[in-house]
Amino acid sequence: MARGLIVSKQKILLGHGSGGRLMHKLIKELVLPRLGNPILKELADSAVINYKERLAFTTDSFVVSPLKFPGGDIGKLAVCGTVNDLLMSGAQPEYLSLGLIIEEGLDFGVLQEIVDSIARAARAAQIKVIAGDLKVVEIGACDKIFINTSGIGRVIKRLSLKNIRAGDKIIISGNIAQHGLAVLSKRKNLDLGFDIRSDCAALNNLILPVLQNTGVVRFMRDPTRGGLATTLNEIAENSGLGIEIEEKNVPLSNKVRAACELLGIDPLHIASEGIAVMVVDALASARVLSLLRAHPLGRNARIAGKVVASPKTKGRVILRTSIGSERIVDMLTNEALPRIC
Amino acid sequence: MARGLIVSKQKILLGHGSGGRLMHKLIKELVLPRLGNPILKELADSAVINYKERLAFTTDSFVVSPLKFPGGDIGKLAVCGTVNDLLMSGAQPEYLSLGLIIEEGLDFGVLQEIVDSIARAARAAQIKVIAGDLKVVEIGACDKIFINTSGIGRVIKRLSLKNIRAGDKIIISGNIAQHGLAVLSKRKNLDLGFDIRSDCAALNNLILPVLQNTGVVRFMRDPTRGGLATTLNEIAENSGLGIEIEEKNVPLSNKVRAACELLGIDPLHIASEGIAVMVVDALASARVLSLLRAHPLGRNARIAGKVVASPKTKGRVILRTSIGSERIVDMLTNEALPRIC
Repeated sequence: MARGLIVSKQKILLGHGSGGRLMHKLIKELVLPRLGNPILKELADSAVINYKERLAFTTDSFVVSPLKFPGGDIGKLAVCGTVNDLLMSGAQPEYLSLGLIIEEGLDFGVLQEIVDSIARAARAAQIKVIAGDLKVVEIGACDKIFINTSGIGRVIKRLSLKNIRAGDKIIISGNIAQHGLAVLSKRKNLDLGFDIRSDCAALNNLILPVLQNTGVVRFMRDPTRGGLATTLNEIAENSGLGIEIEEKNVPLSNKVRAACELLGIDPLHIASEGIAVMVVDALASARVLSLLRAHPLGRNARIAGKVVASPKTKGRVILRTSIGSERIVDMLTNEALPRIC
Repeated sequence: MARGLIVSKQKILLGHGSGGRLMHKLIKELVLPRLGNPILKELADSAVINYKERLAFTTDSFVVSPLKFPGGDIGKLAVCGTVNDLLMSGAQPEYLSLGLIIEEGLDFGVLQEIVDSIARAARAAQIKVIAGDLKVVEIGACDKIFINTSGIGRVIKRLSLKNIRAGDKIIISGNIAQHGLAVLSKRKNLDLGFDIRSDCAALNNLILPVLQNTGVVRFMRDPTRGGLATTLNEIAENSGLGIEIEEKNVPLSNKVRAACELLGIDPLHIASEGIAVMVVDALASARVLSLLRAHPLGRNARIAGKVVASPKTKGRVILRTSIGSERIVDMLTNEALPRIC
């Protein structure tokens, strides 16, 4: 199909699902004008509603291919992704729904493994699956299995972009880009000379102690689709402030760095599924960092940058490289890695 | 593929998504042992949780084909289906999440129409979409668009199978089997000589007044996939009581009756998307019926049968035909109409 035709007839592209610039445009131009309300318009990781207790509510569909990858599978991912979205909103994850769309002919054994994995991950994250739905479609109408999880959590600390101030520190809780590379290398059977495992993990035990023991976290988001660059841009654009990141302080394993160089892809655009980007009060940032590092999932945590207020950087993300130059880091614009989650 | 092969390798069949006997078996044998907890095990239309206010929480995925059918489309269906599941649990629907899985290449115009339809249906049902997710998969990995909605509602009347007693009346709030036939006739381009429209509708204004003004509703369920026969069997099996239905009192339009005869399908197994099966206190059943009939969506409501307690009927559904004979009505066992919702 000619590219001109696609554009003129306005068709959905893979990039519209990338988590990056195109998806933001689609949601802002097509979805929000039709469905917008004050809660939805925040485009937060979870919606927060009041029921005497404040609740967080979030949803995510998982279409990852292949179903299994080093460090996880679609079942574990479907639990951890939604658990982490609740945590990022300052909520203790409590309840999960599970919607399965299954392709006719799927092996029972595959489904059993996936549901076992969901059960293990839910136990680990101390969340209960309390509602579900199951659909089967004919062969060719979906690719093996898609999973939706929606989650409810009890808000223990109200976080908001509005709380962010110039001078706040940006903490990244672990090595970036592991998940996307793990899925990609499995899907393409890439021989990188070493294994890269997904970081897929529920972050309860890393994040909840920080929320409970400090009052200094302004905002959190997990850099999934679109990667760290997209998450930082969302924070900068929506807070109206700038973000400066020191490249040398972005946690990145040597393996991932080497693999990204080999493949010619930017680790800042690759999804993680087990780390958090935290904006915290500068004065308390060292304390938060030490709390994070005390947990195995946070042992690579780093203070990677800060929030700045200047006309030059307003709404932008600036990366200072190790040789002292600066570059503007944009959201992911197209789809680098479809079906990564 | 030989049938023997499918059975011996235990593969997922379309019937596993039918809402009927096979799906119940799959959920009870494969899902519940892995994920079961007291709330999930109720297999209610919504899970009910306490957050000072009692909340109902439900999820549903929609894979209907075609996307548009007489009386509705996938967007309207995705809102009404989840709204009705909340209502069936005695809850006032309040919040919705929206998970879109879109096939690359879908026309923007189609997506706009669907989101418009979601917005209209949400306004009509006075429910707000407050959380969302969007994924795009490559051509051939899904069929145009699948939608998951999860919903939260505030419980205004706690309903339970445990409240059902012998002597209770079974009320059916409207003509059955409209939705399934409407989708089927559109999909197959059947020329029935007349149009059958889906009954797809949010039942807030029909159901809430009954819940608010009477204390006599024991239990409700909407007879979607698997049809009235499946819903009645679920009630009978899980309450341990029997149900007797008078065939002549099952609301059924002449058009649908004629179409079912023509097609050789049983209207008791065909999905509805805008009616409720209500189990109510016998003494107050006439009052409930008149409340229902006062609303356009309930004008065909009928008392169709009653709950009985006898060893012969325990856990069973008995249909008394107009010529006086009796037959046992079973759940749908296989998949009559895949992708009906």
